[in-house]
Amino acid sequence: MQKKVFQLLVDNTSGVLSRISGLFSRRGYNIESITAGVTADPRFTRITIVAAGDDEILEQIEKQVAKLVDVRDVKELKPEESVYRELVLIKVRAAIEQRQGIIAIADSFRAKIIDFASESLMIELTGDQQKVDAFIRLMEDYGILELARTGIAGLGRGTEHITYIE
Amino acid sequence: MQKKVFQLLVDNTSGVLSRISGLFSRRGYNIESITAGVTADPRFTRITIVAAGDDEILEQIEKQVAKLVDVRDVKELKPEESVYRELVLIKVRAAIEQRQGIIAIADSFRAKIIDFASESLMIELTGDQQKVDAFIRLMEDYGILELARTGIAGLGRGTEHITYIE
Repeated sequence: MQKKVFQLLVDNTSGVLSRISGLFSRRGYNIESITAGVTADPRFTRITIVAAGDDEILEQIEKQVAKLVDVRDVKELKPEESVYRELVLIKVRAAIEQRQGIIAIADSFRAKIIDFASESLMIELTGDQQKVDAFIRLMEDYGILELARTGIAGLGRGTEHITYIE
Repeated sequence: MQKKVFQLLVDNTSGVLSRISGLFSRRGYNIESITAGVTADPRFTRITIVAAGDDEILEQIEKQVAKLVDVRDVKELKPEESVYRELVLIKVRAAIEQRQGIIAIADSFRAKIIDFASESLMIELTGDQQKVDAFIRLMEDYGILELARTGIAGLGRGTEHITYIE
């Protein structure tokens, strides 16, 4: 079982996301995380997909995705050549006595407190998956009320392997 | 044309993402951004969807999504009660003469330089859509080589309206 990160460049049309996620689910593959957002050029959307599974089957899915209408480019973002980042928002239970401890941990992770309520704090953290997972484990001791993570966005390092269109 | 942010809590199963995005695309609605990631409880995935369109039709889609298998909860994250955040990775063309200018702008947005190459810089920025859009416009003057944005993740403020399971 390997985890792979795929970067796609697709036309910004309705339906493309459904076709891509359908390809994974028909093979019984769960997408661990997906992020999709328009690029600097509003005609295109960049999608980052993290999927875990058998190497060979993931390669087959990658080839099938590449053939889909509206898909301009698919490539694997290999860890050694790429930067991955994820954003997580966590709402933590925080009575007044707990606040200082939570804020100290947040500071050491360079996380930001973005909302204060009487019984909770909302924290924003970015990092790779390991950092985000470690922070979540620490916050579990206080009690996580809600959590939203964006999933991974990634780019290749340097100026090689860039997909240009036109 | 209104933009709405929906927060979903779904079972962490293959297929659920495809069914949800399929509902939007069958109505001809393009999902502007989608983020999906597992919650603190690995049985569940939280999905945040941003869609623009007619108010009434978006409400219909919301109701249909709520009826889907594996969907535990759907709610609209209204701007006045919520915090939205997005992460963007931008690779900017940066010859040595441009670097200082780019780094100065990044600092003023509290963005981080996360990769240096001989002809480019990679920058990580988090913020709401307006902040991210403003930063992207400034970077366009230097030349954006690649860009990956996660799309919005959001949580409601305070401790009301939290969806608990079990």
